[in-house]
Amino acid sequence: MPEPAITLDGWYCLHDFRSMDWTAWKMISSDERESAIHEFHQLINKWEKTESNKTGSHAIYSIVGQKADFMMMILRPTMEELNEIENEFNKTKLAEFTIPTYSYVSVVELSNYMAQGKDPETDPEIQARLKPILPKWKYACFYPMDKRRQGNDNWYMLEKEDRGKMMYSHGMIGRKYAGKVRQIITGSVGFDDWEWGVTLFAHDVLQFKKLVYEMRFDEVSARFGEFGSFYVGHLLEKESLPKFLSI
Amino acid sequence: MPEPAITLDGWYCLHDFRSMDWTAWKMISSDERESAIHEFHQLINKWEKTESNKTGSHAIYSIVGQKADFMMMILRPTMEELNEIENEFNKTKLAEFTIPTYSYVSVVELSNYMAQGKDPETDPEIQARLKPILPKWKYACFYPMDKRRQGNDNWYMLEKEDRGKMMYSHGMIGRKYAGKVRQIITGSVGFDDWEWGVTLFAHDVLQFKKLVYEMRFDEVSARFGEFGSFYVGHLLEKESLPKFLSI
Amino acid sequence: MPEPAITLDGWYCLHDFRSMDWTAWKMISSDERESAIHEFHQLINKWEKTESNKTGSHAIYSIVGQKADFMMMILRPTMEELNEIENEFNKTKLAEFTIPTYSYVSVVELSNYMAQGKDPETDPEIQARLKPILPKWKYACFYPMDKRRQGNDNWYMLEKEDRGKMMYSHGMIGRKYAGKVRQIITGSVGFDDWEWGVTLFAHDVLQFKKLVYEMRFDEVSARFGEFGSFYVGHLLEKESLPKFLSI
Amino acid sequence: MPEPAITLDGWYCLHDFRSMDWTAWKMISSDERESAIHEFHQLINKWEKTESNKTGSHAIYSIVGQKADFMMMILRPTMEELNEIENEFNKTKLAEFTIPTYSYVSVVELSNYMAQGKDPETDPEIQARLKPILPKWKYACFYPMDKRRQGNDNWYMLEKEDRGKMMYSHGMIGRKYAGKVRQIITGSVGFDDWEWGVTLFAHDVLQFKKLVYEMRFDEVSARFGEFGSFYVGHLLEKESLPKFLSI
Amino acid sequence: MPEPAITLDGWYCLHDFRSMDWTAWKMISSDERESAIHEFHQLINKWEKTESNKTGSHAIYSIVGQKADFMMMILRPTMEELNEIENEFNKTKLAEFTIPTYSYVSVVELSNYMAQGKDPETDPEIQARLKPILPKWKYACFYPMDKRRQGNDNWYMLEKEDRGKMMYSHGMIGRKYAGKVRQIITGSVGFDDWEWGVTLFAHDVLQFKKLVYEMRFDEVSARFGEFGSFYVGHLLEKESLPKFLSI
Repeated sequence: MPEPAITLDGWYCLHDFRSMDWTAWKMISSDERESAIHEFHQLINKWEKTESNKTGSHAIYSIVGQKADFMMMILRPTMEELNEIENEFNKTKLAEFTIPTYSYVSVVELSNYMAQGKDPETDPEIQARLKPILPKWKYACFYPMDKRRQGNDNWYMLEKEDRGKMMYSHGMIGRKYAGKVRQIITGSVGFDDWEWGVTLFAHDVLQFKKLVYEMRFDEVSARFGEFGSFYVGHLLEKESLPKFLSI
Repeated sequence: MPEPAITLDGWYCLHDFRSMDWTAWKMISSDERESAIHEFHQLINKWEKTESNKTGSHAIYSIVGQKADFMMMILRPTMEELNEIENEFNKTKLAEFTIPTYSYVSVVELSNYMAQGKDPETDPEIQARLKPILPKWKYACFYPMDKRRQGNDNWYMLEKEDRGKMMYSHGMIGRKYAGKVRQIITGSVGFDDWEWGVTLFAHDVLQFKKLVYEMRFDEVSARFGEFGSFYVGHLLEKESLPKFLSI
Repeated sequence: MPEPAITLDGWYCLHDFRSMDWTAWKMISSDERESAIHEFHQLINKWEKTESNKTGSHAIYSIVGQKADFMMMILRPTMEELNEIENEFNKTKLAEFTIPTYSYVSVVELSNYMAQGKDPETDPEIQARLKPILPKWKYACFYPMDKRRQGNDNWYMLEKEDRGKMMYSHGMIGRKYAGKVRQIITGSVGFDDWEWGVTLFAHDVLQFKKLVYEMRFDEVSARFGEFGSFYVGHLLEKESLPKFLSI
Repeated sequence: MPEPAITLDGWYCLHDFRSMDWTAWKMISSDERESAIHEFHQLINKWEKTESNKTGSHAIYSIVGQKADFMMMILRPTMEELNEIENEFNKTKLAEFTIPTYSYVSVVELSNYMAQGKDPETDPEIQARLKPILPKWKYACFYPMDKRRQGNDNWYMLEKEDRGKMMYSHGMIGRKYAGKVRQIITGSVGFDDWEWGVTLFAHDVLQFKKLVYEMRFDEVSARFGEFGSFYVGHLLEKESLPKFLSI
Repeated sequence: MPEPAITLDGWYCLHDFRSMDWTAWKMISSDERESAIHEFHQLINKWEKTESNKTGSHAIYSIVGQKADFMMMILRPTMEELNEIENEFNKTKLAEFTIPTYSYVSVVELSNYMAQGKDPETDPEIQARLKPILPKWKYACFYPMDKRRQGNDNWYMLEKEDRGKMMYSHGMIGRKYAGKVRQIITGSVGFDDWEWGVTLFAHDVLQFKKLVYEMRFDEVSARFGEFGSFYVGHLLEKESLPKFLSI
C-alpha cells in the first residue's frame, strides 16, 4: 500500500448555491421584499461580526448562467455551525424565494509537507491558510474534483514520491498566478461526493480560464483529474444586494 | 469460479433522507406545527421502546448541505417492519412537509471469518454486532459502495485468498480508529442499487475524512472501490427536534 | 459473427412502480378514499378473473424505501392488453394520487435449449413457464440487467459454446435455491432500456441477497453483468390494500 | 484519416413523446375535452392532407410504460416546418394536458452505396426511401444510437472498407425480416444527442425483439453499438383517439 | 509536461436556452401578452444598439424539439455584463413564462497560431474574430465538447506538435465549408462544465450534419472528441417574435 498523504485541516466550509424564484418574488409586495432583504442583511451583519472576530469568514457571489443565481460560501470552526447557518438561512423570508441548486460540504485542507519544520498548530502562516478570511475579489470560480482511479491512471496506487513530484510541478503552475488568482482547497473525502472542492478568486475572470487550462496539460490533471461542474460569478456585496434583488 | 464470500446477516436497515419544505411548514399555524412535532415525538417514543426492548434501533441525524435536512436510520428484525415504519411516517403530519431525497435498504452484514470457531447464532459478541444498538455519537456519515468489476480491476474474479488478504489489511486501517469511529456495514445486494452501505459514527467529524482518505490508498479502495454519494450530519436528539423545526 | 441465442417468448409483461402522494390523498374525504379503493378493487377483480381463466397473471407488492410505494406486475398474451390495463389504471381515481416512478416493458423469455426434443408450442412444462401464474410469495425483487459489451468483456463477441457453458454453471447456482427463490426472466431487447428484467419471489427476503451475491462471483455476472436499480418489497394482497392506504 | 461515409438525406423528422396529465384532463368538463380532441383532429386532418399530397408524412403511436403515453412522428421537407408543427401543437388545448418527455430531431438518411449507378435525385426507389410515407403498421419501436469510439472499439478509426463489410453483413440480418419489420434510419449528427434514430414498424411486436437481439450478436452492434432508450407502442389511429382520451 | 496551447480570448458569451410555459402564457390576457412582448422588444432594442456600436452582439434562435423553445446567444466585453443581461431578462414579464433548460458560459477563443507575425491586439482580422458580430444566418447549431483524457486517448498528454498537426487537418475540413457554415468557438475551461462551446451558423441546416459527420472521421474527433447535447434551430427575428408567441 502506498503511503497515504497526510493533511492539515482548518475551518469547515459550506458552498450553498441558490436560484431565485423571480416569479414568486415579484408577486409579493415591495414592502415584503424590503423586509426580506432587511432580514438577510441582518444575517450578513452577524456573519460580518464573526469575520471581524476572525472566528469564521464568508463571501457571496452572483453566479452567471442558469446553474444558480448566487452562491454563499461560509467558513466556520465546526461543522455544526455550518448546519446552524444553513438552517437559519432556510428559515428566512428570502429563502422562500430561492431554489437550492447545489451545495458542497468540505474543510480547508493543506498538504502536510507545507509544515516542514514548523508546528502547524502555532505557525501563523499555516494558521492563516487553514482559517482564511476570504478575499473579496471581484470574481470567484468553484469546482469539485477527484483524483482518478481508472485502469493505469490510478492516483491512489502511485508511490508517495511520484505523487509528490507531480503535485510539486502542479503547484509551480499555480505560483505563476500569484497575485492574480487566489486558491482555497477544501477536502471533502467522507463529507461530500467529490474528494476536493477548489475555490478560486481573481480580479480578472479570464485568469481562471488561463490557470485551469494551463494546469490541464499537467500530468496530475491530464491523467488523474476528474472534474465536476464549474461555477463562475462576481462579488455580490451587501450593498449591491438590494439592486440585485430589485424588481 | 472464485469461492463466494459467505456473510452473516442481522437486522434489516432503512436509511431515509428527507428535506424540509420550509415554506409550506411556515404557512401552517404554530399550533399545527406543534401538533405535528408532538405526533412525530410519539412515533419516536415507540421506536425508543423498541430499542429499550432490544428489538430494534434507530437514530436521527441532521444533514449538512442541500442533499437532505435530516436522516432517519432504522434497524428492525424484519424488512416488513421497516416498510411499516416508513409507511407510518409517511402518513404523519410532519411527512407532508418533508421531501424524500434518498433512501437505502440493506441488512447488517458481517463477514463469516469473524465467526471462526464460534456459533454465530449464539455468540454474544457476534449477536451484538448483527443486532447493533446504534451509538448516539455526535456525528454520522453514510455512503453506499460497490466492489469494482472493470477490466483488470474485477473484484469478483479474484481468488478468495487474495480478497481475504486485502480485506484483512483494510480492516487493520479501520482498527486504528477504534474508539474514534464506529462503523456499521450493511449489505444491499438484491435490495438496493449499491452492494453495501457504510454508516460511520464519530465524536469528531474530522475522523470520517481521515479514515476514508487513509483507506482510499489501500488497494481494496484504490483499485476496487466505487463510491456513491456521501452524507454527513450531526445527532438530532428528540429534545432538539422542536428547536430544529422551530420557525 | 457468433451464433445468436434463440429464445422462446411467452406472455408480455409490465412492471409499473408508483409512489403515493400521501399529502393529496389525505386531503380528500374518507368517502372519496373508500370509493377510490373500491374502484381499484374492481380493477383487481377483473385481473383475478383473467388469472383464474389462465389468460394472464398479476401481482402487487409494496416497495421498501423511497423508490416507490408499490409495484404492479402484469402479464398478458399481447402487448396491447398491457397498454390498455396501464391506461385503465391511469384513469382511475387512485391513480390521481400516485406518482409514476419506474416501469419496465418486457416479455417472458426462455432459452431455446430448454426445449430440446420437445415442441415448445405444446409441451405443458414449457407452456407453463412461458405463461406463468405469478407465485404470490411473500417477497419480490426486481432488477433489470444487460450483458456487458466492454473491451475484453464483450458477451456478444463470445462463441455460442462458451456462452452456453457459462450460462449452464450460472443456472446451477439458481437451482440450489429451488423452493426458496422463484425466478422469472423477461426479455426486453427492443422494448425497454435494458436487455432483461429479473423478477424474484421468495418466502424469506434474505434469499434474494444470498442468491444475487453468490451469482456475482460467477463469471457470467462478474465479467458480463451490468445491473440497473434493485426494487424489493412484500406482497400486497387485495385484502391488505385498505390498510396500506388507510389514513 | 479514414474516408468518411457519404449519405443521402431526405425529409426532416421529429419524434415527439408526450405523457398525459390525466388528473388535470379529468378536471375539465367533457365539453372542453371534446373540443380539445376536435382541435387535435383538425390538426391531424391538415397532416393527412400533407401526406396525401406526398409533401410529408406522420404517425401517432400509443407508448407502453411510463416513458410516455403517445408519440407523434412527423416528416417534412424542411426543418422549419417541423418547428412550426411543434409550436402549433404546443399551442393547442390538448397540449396543456401533455407533459413533454422526450423528442428527437433528425433527417431520413440512406447510405450512398445504395445509389450505385443511379441518380439519387431522380431514381424513384431512392426518392421513395428518402421521402417515405410512414407505414401505419400496428406496432412501432424507436431508439437512438451511436457508433462507439472507445479504446480499440472505435468505429470512426476503421477503414471505409472494413466498415462497409460490417455494414453489409448487418444489412443482411435486416433483410431476413423483410415484410415483417420496416426500418427507417434517420441521421442526427449535428441535430440531436445521438448519431442516429432507428424507427421500426411491425405487425407483430415480437419481431422487434427478434431483430434487435439477433443484430446484437453482429460485430457492428456487439463492438460498436451504443444504444439509448427504447420506446415501443401501438398505432393510435385518428378514430381511436377519442377512446384513448375518454374519461 | 506537454507545452500548453495558448489562446487569444475575446468577448464573453452566454447561451441561454428557455422553454415556454405555454399553458401559463395562454392564461393571461392578450393585453398582458402584448405588453410582455413589448417589454422584451425594448430589451432587444437595447441589445441592437450595443451591436450597432460594436460593443457586443446577440442572436435569438427558435429551437426544434423539446430541449428548448428558443435560445438567446449574447456576446459582451465583460462577464459582468452577461450577468446583468441575464438578470435583466429574468426580471421581465416574459421570463415568468419561460423555463430555463440549459445555459453555457464561455469566451470567444482563437488559437494563438493564428496570430503569427501579427499583433492580436490591433490586427483587424483577429480583432473581428475575437469580437464577432453574429451572422444572422437562417440556422444555428450549438454543442459543448471536451478533448478526451481516457487511457491511450489522452489529448492533454500529446506533444504540442502532434496536437498541432491534428488540429490543422481538422481545420482543413472546416475550410471546405467556408461560405456554407460559420463557426464560433468559445472556450469554457474554468467557466462551465465542458471545455468548449461550438456555435455553427448556416443557410442550409443540412450543412451542420455534413460538417459534423465528416469531422467525426477525423482523428481529433474520432479519438479525442467528447460531445455534449446538440441544439439546432432557426433564426427568430425581432419581427417574428409576436407570431412565435401568438396564441
